[in-house]
Amino acid sequence: MVPPSAILALPYPTVRLLPRAKPQAIRHGFPWVYANELVLDRRTKALTPGSFAVLEDPDRRPMGVVTVNPNSKIIARMMDADPSAVIDGAWIEARLRRALAHREALYDSPFYRLVHAEADGFPGVVIDRFGDLAVVQPNAAWSEAMIDSLVAALVAVTGVGSVIKNGSGRARRLEGLEEELVVAHGTAPVAPVPVRMNGATYMADVMGGQKTGLFFDQRPNHAFAAGLGKGGTVLDVFSHVGGFGLAALAGGATSALAVDGSAPALALAEAGAEAMGRGADFQARQGDAFAQMEALAGEGARFDLVICDPPAFAPSKTALEPGLRAYERVARLAAGLVKDGGYLMLCSCSHAADLSRFRSACTRGIGRAGRSGQIIYTGFAGPDHPMLPQLAESGYLKALAFRL
Amino acid sequence: MVPPSAILALPYPTVRLLPRAKPQAIRHGFPWVYANELVLDRRTKALTPGSFAVLEDPDRRPMGVVTVNPNSKIIARMMDADPSAVIDGAWIEARLRRALAHREALYDSPFYRLVHAEADGFPGVVIDRFGDLAVVQPNAAWSEAMIDSLVAALVAVTGVGSVIKNGSGRARRLEGLEEELVVAHGTAPVAPVPVRMNGATYMADVMGGQKTGLFFDQRPNHAFAAGLGKGGTVLDVFSHVGGFGLAALAGGATSALAVDGSAPALALAEAGAEAMGRGADFQARQGDAFAQMEALAGEGARFDLVICDPPAFAPSKTALEPGLRAYERVARLAAGLVKDGGYLMLCSCSHAADLSRFRSACTRGIGRAGRSGQIIYTGFAGPDHPMLPQLAESGYLKALAFRL
Repeated sequence: MVPPSAILALPYPTVRLLPRAKPQAIRHGFPWVYANELVLDRRTKALTPGSFAVLEDPDRRPMGVVTVNPNSKIIARMMDADPSAVIDGAWIEARLRRALAHREALYDSPFYRLVHAEADGFPGVVIDRFGDLAVVQPNAAWSEAMIDSLVAALVAVTGVGSVIKNGSGRARRLEGLEEELVVAHGTAPVAPVPVRMNGATYMADVMGGQKTGLFFDQRPNHAFAAGLGKGGTVLDVFSHVGGFGLAALAGGATSALAVDGSAPALALAEAGAEAMGRGADFQARQGDAFAQMEALAGEGARFDLVICDPPAFAPSKTALEPGLRAYERVARLAAGLVKDGGYLMLCSCSHAADLSRFRSACTRGIGRAGRSGQIIYTGFAGPDHPMLPQLAESGYLKALAFRL
Repeated sequence: MVPPSAILALPYPTVRLLPRAKPQAIRHGFPWVYANELVLDRRTKALTPGSFAVLEDPDRRPMGVVTVNPNSKIIARMMDADPSAVIDGAWIEARLRRALAHREALYDSPFYRLVHAEADGFPGVVIDRFGDLAVVQPNAAWSEAMIDSLVAALVAVTGVGSVIKNGSGRARRLEGLEEELVVAHGTAPVAPVPVRMNGATYMADVMGGQKTGLFFDQRPNHAFAAGLGKGGTVLDVFSHVGGFGLAALAGGATSALAVDGSAPALALAEAGAEAMGRGADFQARQGDAFAQMEALAGEGARFDLVICDPPAFAPSKTALEPGLRAYERVARLAAGLVKDGGYLMLCSCSHAADLSRFRSACTRGIGRAGRSGQIIYTGFAGPDHPMLPQLAESGYLKALAFRL
C-alpha cells in the first residue's frame, strides 16, 4: 500500500483525481488526465501552465509526477510514474539517452525522429534530428518553460551543433503557446539540409518548411513503394519535397512525376532529384492535386505506380465524414491513372479516420473508378515514431498499397 | 441493364441468390455466398461439389461464374465476374501469369507464395514456390476436380520441374476433401530445399513439414526483427524451422536460441544455421514453449531481442477468449526475458483475434510482467499474401514489436 503523499515529502504540490476518474487506466500507462477528471480547486486552477505536480488518486495515494496546464483540455500529462521524480536537466538527459539508444540501434546515420512525444516520455515534445542539427517542437507548456534545459540536454546527449525551436501548429495553440521560430543553439543553416533516406536525397528546409522540414514518418512506406516502382513510371501526388517520388527513383523507377500545391516544396523535390543525379527523370506539376489528376486522366496518362499522400482530410471527429469522402475521391481519381496490373499506394495521416474506415473509403473509390484490386501492404509510421500501447488506437499514419 | 442469363446462352447451369441476400456486396467484390443465401432447390443441391455455375441475383440477372459446393458452409465462391467465362486451362494460365507478374516484380529469386487463394482469383487454392518446385494446396473442391489442369498450367507458366500436391489441413476437411500428399509432376526432392530469405538460409521440408514446408508470410516481419537484433542476443520462441532466429543471425545478431516443440523443425533450423556458417552461434531447446520460457527465467537468462510466433491460439470465434489469455501469457513470460531497453516481437496468426484485441492482450501481459513498452512496429503478412479489400478485416497475421 502506497502511503498518502503528505507523508512522503514530495517535491511538488499535489493535484487529485475526482472519484469519477479511472485511476486504473493511468496506472496501466494511459498518460493523460482530462480537465473533467481532476479536482479543480482554487489552488489547482492557480498552478502555472507547465508546472509540475504530484497526481493523487481519489484516495490521496500518489500516482506519479504530472505536468499541469489549467488552460488545456488535457489538464495533466504523466511525466514520471515515480512520484518522487524531479524533472530537471538530469531527468531530461536520461530520457534523451534512452530515446537516442533506440534510434542508434535502428539507423546507420543520424537522421530520424529522436523524440516522439508521450511514447518517448516527453509529453507534447517532438524532436527531429538532421545530422548535426535538431529541430524541437515544444508543444506542451512544460517544455516551453524548460526550453533552455531541454536544448542544453539535447546538445549534451547528441552533440548536435545547432538546435532550431519551431513553435508552430495547432498543438501549441491548444496549449495557449505563441508561434515562433528561433535558433536556440548554434546557427541556422544557410541552405536546405540534404537528408539521405532509402537511398534518396531529400532537401529539408528546417527554417521555412512544414513542421520540422521533413517527414521521417513515411520512411518504411517510402521503402516499400520504391520496391513497387522498380523499372516503371511513378506518379507522386501530394508530393511535398518528393518523399515517395525520389525514393522510387532511388529504387530503380525510370521516371517520377511529382504533383503538389506548393511551389517551394516542389523546388526542394527538384533539388533533391538533381542531387541524386536524376534531375532528367524527375518532373513536377504545381497545382491543386485533384485538378492535376483530372488533367492527367484527360491526357490519357497512365503510370506503373501512383502514390497519394494527402494532408489530413479528417483531422478531427467532426471532419470525419467529409474527410472520408475526400479520401474516396483521391482513390477514385488516382486509380484511373494506374496501368492494368500496376500499383496504387494511398496514405492517410488523419487521426480520426481509423484503418478500417480509411480502407473502406479507398476501396469504394477504386470501385467507382471501375477498377478492382488486392491489398498487398498495410504500413504505419516508422519505428522512430513509437506509440504508447494505451494510445495505439489513435496511430495517425496509415499507408495501403493495392495492386489493380 | 444486364439481360437475364437465359437469353445469354451461358455455359454453366444457374444458381440464384435468395431475396434476403445482398447482391451489392458481391458486386463490390465480396467473393463468397453462404448456404443460407442461395436458393437450395433440388437441382442446386444435386450439383457436383466443385462444379461451376452462373450466379444470378434475386432478379435473375447473372453476376458471374461461381464454383459450387453444396457440402460447404461457403456454398459458392466467385470465380469470375464475367458470367460468360469458361474455367479451363487457358483461364487458369491467364490468372497464374497475372499472379506471377506480381511476384516477379517483388522478388529477385523465385521463392514466394505464388497464389494466395481468393485474393489471387483462385478460391481456396494456395501455391508456394521454392525455385524449381511448387507445392499446391487445393483446399476447395473445384481445384481438386481440376488438379490436372492446374498442375499443367503451373508447369507451363512457371517452368517448375516438380509439383507437390499437399492435401492436408482443416480447410480441406471443411470442403469434404481427403488428406493426401502426392508428387503431381516431376520428382519429390530427396532432401530439404534450401530457401534464401532476408539473407538467411532456411531448410524447407516440402514432403513432411507443416503446410507447404515453410511460411513465407512472415518475411517482412523477419526483416524488421533482424534489424532490431543486430549485435545482440536473440531468443526465438515457437521457432519452427528458425524463421526469426536465422533472419536475426543473418542481420548481425551475435547468437540465437530457438525454442520449439518439434524436434524435426529444430533440426531443420540447425541445418539452416550450419548452411549459413553460423552453426556455432545457434542453439535449440526442444520442449513446451511456456515451460521453456519459465525455465529460462529461472536461469536468469535475458536477451536483447525476444520473438514469439506461436500457432493460432484463437483459430475460431469460440476460441477467442482462451486464445487471448494464451497470448497474454506468452507476452508475460516473454517480456520477463527481455533486457531493459531491449525489444519484444509478438505475433498472432489467429483470424479471430483482431489487431486491437491482440494488442491489448500483449500490453496486459507485458504489464503483468512488471514491464512497460512502446509499440514501434505493426506488421502483417508480406505482399505475396495479398488480401481482397472485402476480406481485409480478417487479415490473419499480425506482428507487434515493443521496446521495453
